This record gives sequence, C-alpha cells and structure tokens, in this order.
Amino acid sequence: MNDAKTMTGDQMNATHDFVLTDRAQGVEIANWQVSNETLGIETPFKISKTTLHGGRQEGSTLITIDTGNLQLVVIPTRGMGLYKAQCEDVALSWKSPVDEVVNPAFINLAERGGLGWLDGFNEMLARCGFEWSGHPSTENGRLLTLHGRVQNIPASRVVVSIESAAPHRITVKGLIKEKTFKFSNLETWAGVSVTPGERAFRVHDELHNLSDYERDYQIIYHANFGSPLLEGGARFQAAAHEVSPFNDYAKAGLASWQTYLPVTPGFDEMVFNIKPYADAEGKTLAMLSNQAGSRGVSLGFNVQQLPALTLWKNTDSAADGYVTGIEPGTCYPYPRQVERDQGRIAKIGSGEIKTFDVEFRILGSAGDVKQAEAEIARIQAGRQTELVETPMGRE
Amino acid sequence: MNDAKTMTGDQMNATHDFVLTDRAQGVEIANWQVSNETLGIETPFKISKTTLHGGRQEGSTLITIDTGNLQLVVIPTRGMGLYKAQCEDVALSWKSPVDEVVNPAFINLAERGGLGWLDGFNEMLARCGFEWSGHPSTENGRLLTLHGRVQNIPASRVVVSIESAAPHRITVKGLIKEKTFKFSNLETWAGVSVTPGERAFRVHDELHNLSDYERDYQIIYHANFGSPLLEGGARFQAAAHEVSPFNDYAKAGLASWQTYLPVTPGFDEMVFNIKPYADAEGKTLAMLSNQAGSRGVSLGFNVQQLPALTLWKNTDSAADGYVTGIEPGTCYPYPRQVERDQGRIAKIGSGEIKTFDVEFRILGSAGDVKQAEAEIARIQAGRQTELVETPMGRE
Amino acid sequence: MNDAKTMTGDQMNATHDFVLTDRAQGVEIANWQVSNETLGIETPFKISKTTLHGGRQEGSTLITIDTGNLQLVVIPTRGMGLYKAQCEDVALSWKSPVDEVVNPAFINLAERGGLGWLDGFNEMLARCGFEWSGHPSTENGRLLTLHGRVQNIPASRVVVSIESAAPHRITVKGLIKEKTFKFSNLETWAGVSVTPGERAFRVHDELHNLSDYERDYQIIYHANFGSPLLEGGARFQAAAHEVSPFNDYAKAGLASWQTYLPVTPGFDEMVFNIKPYADAEGKTLAMLSNQAGSRGVSLGFNVQQLPALTLWKNTDSAADGYVTGIEPGTCYPYPRQVERDQGRIAKIGSGEIKTFDVEFRILGSAGDVKQAEAEIARIQAGRQTELVETPMGRE
Repeated sequence: MNDAKTMTGDQMNATHDFVLTDRAQGVEIANWQVSNETLGIETPFKISKTTLHGGRQEGSTLITIDTGNLQLVVIPTRGMGLYKAQCEDVALSWKSPVDEVVNPAFINLAERGGLGWLDGFNEMLARCGFEWSGHPSTENGRLLTLHGRVQNIPASRVVVSIESAAPHRITVKGLIKEKTFKFSNLETWAGVSVTPGERAFRVHDELHNLSDYERDYQIIYHANFGSPLLEGGARFQAAAHEVSPFNDYAKAGLASWQTYLPVTPGFDEMVFNIKPYADAEGKTLAMLSNQAGSRGVSLGFNVQQLPALTLWKNTDSAADGYVTGIEPGTCYPYPRQVERDQGRIAKIGSGEIKTFDVEFRILGSAGDVKQAEAEIARIQAGRQTELVETPMGRE
Repeated sequence: MNDAKTMTGDQMNATHDFVLTDRAQGVEIANWQVSNETLGIETPFKISKTTLHGGRQEGSTLITIDTGNLQLVVIPTRGMGLYKAQCEDVALSWKSPVDEVVNPAFINLAERGGLGWLDGFNEMLARCGFEWSGHPSTENGRLLTLHGRVQNIPASRVVVSIESAAPHRITVKGLIKEKTFKFSNLETWAGVSVTPGERAFRVHDELHNLSDYERDYQIIYHANFGSPLLEGGARFQAAAHEVSPFNDYAKAGLASWQTYLPVTPGFDEMVFNIKPYADAEGKTLAMLSNQAGSRGVSLGFNVQQLPALTLWKNTDSAADGYVTGIEPGTCYPYPRQVERDQGRIAKIGSGEIKTFDVEFRILGSAGDVKQAEAEIARIQAGRQTELVETPMGRE
Repeated sequence: MNDAKTMTGDQMNATHDFVLTDRAQGVEIANWQVSNETLGIETPFKISKTTLHGGRQEGSTLITIDTGNLQLVVIPTRGMGLYKAQCEDVALSWKSPVDEVVNPAFINLAERGGLGWLDGFNEMLARCGFEWSGHPSTENGRLLTLHGRVQNIPASRVVVSIESAAPHRITVKGLIKEKTFKFSNLETWAGVSVTPGERAFRVHDELHNLSDYERDYQIIYHANFGSPLLEGGARFQAAAHEVSPFNDYAKAGLASWQTYLPVTPGFDEMVFNIKPYADAEGKTLAMLSNQAGSRGVSLGFNVQQLPALTLWKNTDSAADGYVTGIEPGTCYPYPRQVERDQGRIAKIGSGEIKTFDVEFRILGSAGDVKQAEAEIARIQAGRQTELVETPMGRE
C-alpha cells in the first residue's frame, strides 16, 4: 500500500491516492510517509502517519500534513478531528488538561451523566454531531450524551490524495460511520485540504444518510484556539445580526462580547449565541485576532449550510483550559429538546448528502487582520447588530 | 502454534486441534489457516482466521469454515457469534446498518438507556444472555442492558478441532467469561460444528456456573435472516401450541403470523411469543422458507433446553434492516422483572453445566422445504395452535 | 530501548533506568526483561514485562519483579495496580471470579448503576481514587462510579529503575493521568519498590494536582488477601482507637472484628470503619495473620497521610471470592456525600503534590508475627479500643 500510486478522476484533478485505513480490505497502516520527492514533485511537502502508544492514547493515529509554512495534524481515530495547526509563528491549538490523543476505546460517553466526551477533548477542531449535538439531555428515556458520537468514532477508511497538477492540493479524508440499528445509518466523509503555499486549510464534510428514512441531524464545528493568539484584549469579530447570552451567567458578558479577558481564574465559561449576517451568496466570516491586531485566524462558512454561530469564551485559568471556541453549526448547543422546540433540528432525507465547508485562514500580519476586518465589514454592510439580553433557551 | 497437531480423546474422536486464542498462554494468532491438504485429508475443507482493521472493527477477528458447499463465519471477539453463512445459493445473513464487525472495546452497552448492544448488531446468530437477556430494565437500581453481555465479550480461548476420521467433523469453540465480582461467575464454551458434505451446522453451547451459588440465567438464540430468503410471501412455520403478540402493536399482525410482508417502510417490527409443541423427546422445528417454497432454513432445538420461541418480524425498509429473527430461548425478551414474574427465569446450580443445541439446516430445494414441513407436521401431530390476543407482559 | 542504561541522580542514588512505556515518545514495549547479569550486578534479580492476549485481557501488560525470595507483579495497564505477590511460601493474592487482567478498554465503569469496576477487580492492591472513591453516588446529576477511575487508566509512562549501588533497590513506577476537561487535572506517579533480600515492598505514590484550582481528592488503598493466609481463625490486628460497623449488617460482626470465619457461603461481606492509633510520628500498623500465627502480612502507613482504615471481611464462598481487604485511606468507602458531610474529603491545592506510602511486609514465621504484634502493641500503648455500635453513615 505504501507505494500505491493511482490516478483518479479527469486529468485536471488527477491525484496520487494513498489508502492508509480500509476496513473493507483490513488495512490499518501504522506508520507511513510520503513527500514531494517520493512523487517527483517540485513543490515541497511531507505527509506522515504515526501510531501513538501509552496511556489512553494507545492505538490512536495521527496524520500530519507539512507544506513548509503550514503544519496540520489530523486524528483519524477520533473522527478525523483536527488536533492542531501551525502556520509560521501562529499556532492554532490550546492546552487542555487532557494531554493525550485518547483512543475512543477508553472513552465512555455516558460517564458523569453524559459528559464522557470531556475525557478526550483537546482538539483544535472537534465535530459535534451528527445524530445529535449539544448539551446532554434525555429523550424517550435515552441519554443523548454531550456533543454526539462522531468525534469518538475511528475512521473506517482514510485516503490521502495529492493532486498531480500544481499547486498540488493535498486532501486527507476519512469515512466515519455513525451506525446504530434502528437509530442511525449515517456516514460522513470528513476531510480537510491544504494547498502548498497557502495560509489556509479547508474542512469539507459530506454527510450521507443511508437510511430509507429522513433523519434529524445536528452539527457544530467546535473550533478552539488558545494562547498566544487568545489573550487579554484579543478580539472576536463576526458579521452579526443578533447576539444573545447562552444562559443567565453569560448576561454579564454580553456588552463585551467582542473582547476577551486574560487568564481569569474562576471565570469558567461564557457562551453566546450569534445569528450571522451573510452576503448574497450566504458567505460569512468570523475572526479571532490578538490584542495587537497582528495575528489571527478567520473562519469562513456559508449560512445556507451552517446558519448558527456559537461563541464560547472559556477564558479560565491556564492549566484548566484558556480557550475560545468559534463554532459554526446548524444549531446552538442547547439540549436537543430546546433546539427542537425552536426549530433548529435539521433534516436529511433518505439517500441525501449534505455538505459542510469551513475555511480556516491564518492571519500573520496586521495587514491580514485588516483585510479580514474589511471582509467582515463588507458582509455586515452597515447593518445593526442586535444585543438580546434574554437567553434563547435553558441548558 | 500454527502447525500444532494434537490428537485428543479416544481414537473414535481423535482430532487435530489448533489453539488460536489462549489467554492463559498469552496467545492471540492474528492470521492463520489450515486445509485438508495440510492435514493429509482427502475431503476438501479450509479453515482460516483473519484479524480486521479500521473503524470500530479494529482488532476484531473472524474464523471462516469452508467445506466447499458451505461457508460459515464465526466471530471470536464477539462472543463466538455467527456472522453469516452461505450454502450454495442460499445466504443466511442480513444487511444491518451496522456494517462493521464491531470490537466490544468500542461498545458501551449502557448507551441510549441500555441500547448500546444495537451499535454492534448485525450477526446471523447473536447470543442474548447468559446472566440476563431481553429488553433493558432496572433491578435494584442497576440497569440490565439490552440482551446481556455475552455477545460483547471476546473469547478467552478458541480451539479449532477437525476429527481425524471421516467425515472429519469441524468444530470451532470459544470460552466466554461473564465475570463480575459479587454478581456473575459464568463460563460458556460456545461452539459450532460443520461436517463436510452436510447442509447444516450445529451450535452447541455449554454454560458453566462456577459460582458456589445457584444463579439465574437467560439465553435467547437470536438467529436472523434477511433477503433474499426473506421476502414478501415468505413463510414461517413451527410446531406451535400458542402464539401471542409481544405488545399491542403486534396484535394487528397476529392473524398473519405465518407470512411475511415485503420491505415495508415504516413497519418497524412485530414480535410474537410462541410456545412450541415438541415430540416425545422434546424435539421441535421452526422454519423460514421463501415465497416459492424452494429455499429455506430450519432450526431444530429441544424444548427441554429451550422451551420458548420468539418470532421477530422486522420487515422494515431495506437499508435499515429487513430481517426476521427466529429465536429459541429459555424465555421471551421481556424485561427481566416480567420474565421473573411469569416464572421464566431459569436457574443453574453451583458447578452445574447446562447445554444448548440448535441445528441450522439449509433447505436448497422444494423437496427440502417439503421435508421440513413434514417434520413440523409430525411434531404438531394434528394438535391445535391457539392464537392468544393479549400480550403476555409489558415491555 | 531494551538495552538503555542511564545513570541518574547523584552517585548515591545512581540508577539504571528503563522506560517501558512513554506516551510522549510513542513507546510501548510489548515484551522485555532485564536481570542482574545483564547489568553486571551480583545480587540476583530479574525484571520482565509481558503483554497478555485473549479475552478481555487483550493488550494488558504485566511487569514482574523477581528477587529470588519475592515475586511481585505490577499491572501498568490497570493504574499500576499490584496483581499479586509471593514471598517464599506466603502468597499475597486471592481468587476472584474475574480471572483475567482486564484491559480498561473493555470496562464501562457506569455499568450496573456504577459498579462496572467489579468487572475487573481481582488485584492484591487496587487503588480507589483519586478524584473520588467509595460506593457509587450521584452528585449534581452525575454518577460517581464505584471506587473512582485510577485503577482503570493505563499508565502513560512506565519506568523501571535499579539502583546501581547495593542493595540495588528496584522501583517500578507509572504515570497515571486522571484528566477530564473542567473536572480533573490529576497526575499520579504510582510506584512500588523492592529491595533484593528483603521480605517487603513499598508503595509510594505522588499525587499531583496540575489544575490551577484546589480540588477534592480521595484515596483508599484496597489491599486484598485470600487463602491460605486468610482462613477460619485467622486474625486481624491493628492499633485501633475506634471500630464501628459500616452498615447495619456488619453490627452482628462487631464483637468478633478481629477474627475471621472460614469460607461461609451466604456470608457476603462485613465492613468495619477503624480509626487507627499512631505513634508520635504518625506511624501505625495493621496485620493479618493465619490461624496458627505462623504466617502473615503487615501494612505500615502514616495516619498523617492516611487517617482512615477500612476492614473488609468478605469471607464468602471460595469460588465467589474468599478475601479480606485491609484498606488504609484518606476516608471510608461511603458515598461521597456522606464523606463530605463528615469532613473526610481531603483537598489538594493547585500545584500541590501529596505523597502516600504503604509498606507491605511478609511475615514468614511465628517470630515475624510476634514482632508485628509487639509493634502494634507499642503503637496502641495501652490505650482503649472503643467499639461503636452505630454505623457512621448510610451506604
């Protein structure tokens, strides 16, 4: 498998494909790497897979894409989550007390009344879905555990593709099966791509409902950033129609929703529900930038796919997780009954495929930050941002 | 280990034995095979073991017995369940949304209020037991999860035996430990045998109570068949003393308990409790045959071992599981309290061994089907089948 | 790694160190051994690591220290628990129905209402902690499962150290991470050491709170001994200020708290809370000795670290676990709310390290037993032991 080179698609998109995991063929390659040199390509890049050992990370796998100026680490065994990224001097990552890449075999999602998800949470991007998302709740006597199951399902098939033609876009995608007899027949091709030379990566997911029935679904892209990007005086900006506190505790932070506190022991977390504005095509942008406005990250998405945006400000103590979440989704993280009552549970028809795209762009200079601000202003287009004091629902 | 040949027992039953898993010696052979040629036997057969990779089937193992006209796949890591069988053009299998052979490490039986078992359910034969079985219930504040634990316990010792003398019967058996301090000290040698040339396989289990205390036990052999054997107009036949609906929903299907609907979106499932008739030796037979009456499968068992028969008609949509279960057991799948109140919880004494046998016979022609019908008629012996409209208990 | 020899510390404590597990470097050595000969040391010893296979022990690891007269087996994959020890003709072990070293991947602590811990319980020393301990309870809607999580967390880093200077003390220690975002940021170096030639081993644990917040913690060292040391007429002795029954059932056994019954089917278990006396330095001693007073084991600990002592008399049937627990701890095993109400939940400050030491000494003669009795008498110093008839709390 290591040296398999196949050309797929038309010549425009011809790719070198490497299958690193394949449950149908019984393949799980433990350690692997490829580089531009291996493929006779001039543009430098290196892609590698490693298998982790020890503690609760025994058997976890990582795939690292390195394009020279950007390094991105994917976790096939944790639902193709993104562990962390680095673009020159900008780190997209955070420091969770959970410092291992936990193998889902060691996770019991039902622990602590449905909070077992927190035993593995440390990713820069964790998907919350797809059968359900949000805070734990009980429906028909059945506990829906925090943030669903997709992040704790190992990928059944993992493919690395490198486009043969310049600029040699690199894609890593994995097939995640959320299957329960009588309940769920969902498959997601969860992927991310990087083009060498760019300061961006693009998440592209295809959720497929293989059931003969229409099903509910929810997805929140829980993107998380810590120090040094996050700091006292760091700013959050988004084209925002409406902002409201998630709960009573967050009311006190509503007025300052756009700025961050430094490490604040005892702060815990404040969460805000944002209804984004978008341009005529549905495009919108959210951004985190540091205090100086010289570094940042922006998330571009389309409100036709992801109409809700959750802002999680967890400016807690450093050792316990100083982190903010910028979370485009189909919904907010209220318990499912609240989301249902307020009409935010999406439907996917039998055989239907829903696609989701989030573009992460790393902003490495004041110019980059200003450009993203200008883009947000273009989308906002002078429209009002309404601050609503009453939480939408109850946790 | 691969080439170990030992002769055990008296000359009549001398066998070639292969130990593929042995927790005492620390043996877990990942990939293995033996054939008649290896052993210098003329009758053709091949037996192989493979280890699966990728997704939630990482580390699952399969043993395949191939006698030329019959292929049978056993899952050591899932309690020696039978994954599927094929006998010439008759397939004993069904299509579950769960399309991986899930390693129990990734199963949490307590999920969804005790329905975690459904995350792995796709076998042609799943054992439901032995400490408990049936629908989830709570006793003394403790959740008894759906269908017990035995199907989600990897075998501790797995032995393949081939009789040296013709017709060279092949047996695969595994030791399943259902052990919990203070609660359970059960061990089951769960086995299946195939004789080359026959169109049958025989499940033979020995449940051993190693506790110094008498214990309750329950076992349901959840045997499952889908398309193409199951189809609109397919028939179920059994020597039946009494048939009753499992719940109110099944009342509407009582009159047509012996025939199947085609794929019927929205049908969900109807379950019927059957009290079998048996002959003087306790033998009884149940059968599924296709619409044309040209293909089928029969299950022979003894009511002294397995006095109850559950018929599960899940003629639901194709993608979500079009399947019927023919389920001999010590009990019906009501919550344990119902089974207890109605006197169907069996007891196993300290040191006692209970044996259970189910013979699966593949019917490949109209003649085979007629012969099985004749056998059922012989057992029924002209006695009445009583249709009782009231469910025995509540789910 | 196998042949790595490093000298650490000053010359007095220079050690040969072997890293057998290291999550940071992705190391998990499956099989390994070292002996005095390998290291050019005269004093005989052998240390080995093996990986287990089959059943629910697939992937479990064991480290065995053998000093000739003493063999001690450690389980890195089960929180560095001590599986068993043997010192000449004295066995420190017991026979649990659970006869495999269960890999935590197959354990769901939330099973049976929070009793999943019992699916793996068979160790001579199981740690109950550190985030919580004791019987299951629910706080803020979250189930705290029996005896906490530490025993079911694989070690993230395991180091074997042999002192270069005679008498070549051998230490095996492992790093256990009890990490949950928002809840726990505990790390414990859990270790045990043996000095060749001695009839003792010493548990030394360092609990580190990496959170920026002060946290509750609980620890009970659940040390368990069965036949033949435990027998009818075997004796328990400890410097005891107060003894009370754990619950109403144990009241009947209060008067005879110092003697053991033979195997007694139906006995189940009686538990007693002991408040130890200690000497001026806080040292105290508890001891189990056989009927003849010719063999025994003593546990030495310091009440400043471990102020509570639980005596668990499970003189049940042989096959179901004839065993006694001598359990020094920070608390008794009542549900956490009871322990909290009675002021026995300890605190660990941010960044603080708490150390715990328990010395196990194997008594191989009547003289050894008498010496331990004399030490207990010295500590008791003629003071009264008060028998309190009322349980402290409710289960």
